Amino acid sequence: MSTMETTKQTNLLELSVDMALRAWISQNQRVDGLLDTLTEQDLEQETAPGRNTGIYILGHLAAVNDGLFPLLGVGQKLHPELEQTFLRDPENKTAPKQSLAVLKKYWKDINEKLMSQFKALKPEDWFKRHNSVSEEDFAKEPHRNKLNVLLNRTAHQSYHIGQLVYLKKK
Amino acid sequence: MSTMETTKQTNLLELSVDMALRAWISQNQRVDGLLDTLTEQDLEQETAPGRNTGIYILGHLAAVNDGLFPLLGVGQKLHPELEQTFLRDPENKTAPKQSLAVLKKYWKDINEKLMSQFKALKPEDWFKRHNSVSEEDFAKEPHRNKLNVLLNRTAHQSYHIGQLVYLKKK
Repeated sequence: MSTMETTKQTNLLELSVDMALRAWISQNQRVDGLLDTLTEQDLEQETAPGRNTGIYILGHLAAVNDGLFPLLGVGQKLHPELEQTFLRDPENKTAPKQSLAVLKKYWKDINEKLMSQFKALKPEDWFKRHNSVSEEDFAKEPHRNKLNVLLNRTAHQSYHIGQLVYLKKK
Repeated sequence: MSTMETTKQTNLLELSVDMALRAWISQNQRVDGLLDTLTEQDLEQETAPGRNTGIYILGHLAAVNDGLFPLLGVGQKLHPELEQTFLRDPENKTAPKQSLAVLKKYWKDINEKLMSQFKALKPEDWFKRHNSVSEEDFAKEPHRNKLNVLLNRTAHQSYHIGQLVYLKKK
């Protein structure tokens, strides 16, 4: 392989990570846009009858993103207290201790910190093992890397955005 | 860069495409799973009051996937007749001409054909221009490639899956 081809491969690898990060940012921004548009009263509503409220989904998304710090090995959770209410328990089992304003701030802080950590990673780092797969399994399934977690979490955000939009008035 | 490093970069590039395809397949399969679980009566319901029905969302997802053939330069649409009802018009503007059984078959056929076309692409092909960006713009924004379309459409499927799950009984 020529030097030019090697450079091209490296660039495509960088591009590949760049695209995954762009997709991630784009979903974060869609949530931000909804949080700017929807009122507190809107967010207190169920997204459909008997389904999660906007506030619960926001807390859930914040808790999931917070979990990326340890999962990707880029730090500790900023708000581990979100886990019980928004990841383990279904809505209404435990009353959220956080107001909407607090959850919005957590969401913003978590994403900002994550992004600064992400930008410090080199493209190759994204292809390393994440922390919920063993070294043995990773050797057999190299796609279970950090970038894959990011792709899956991007889809997960999009899934819940599809629900949050139902709070917008038609 | 040594030969070993070059090989590694090439493998990571392949892996990167493989991961995007896995994410795509995984969302397709989630839709398939819902279509297996939900009855015709379930799918005729609105996903939330005043929102799209399950059948409309299925037609929409099939039409969007069908659009990938020309967009990614891997063929012609199998069912261009879906476009007006499921992409251009909102639900209830034009009555769908297709039964649920027909839409399910289209969804399956489109995805199978797409997958066989995708598998024929080389990893580098995914980093080439897609057909709705000009050569000039692509030169400036190389992330506007085929792989990026796949990532975005994967998120789009996930968005609507978040809505389709509301048809499941609690």
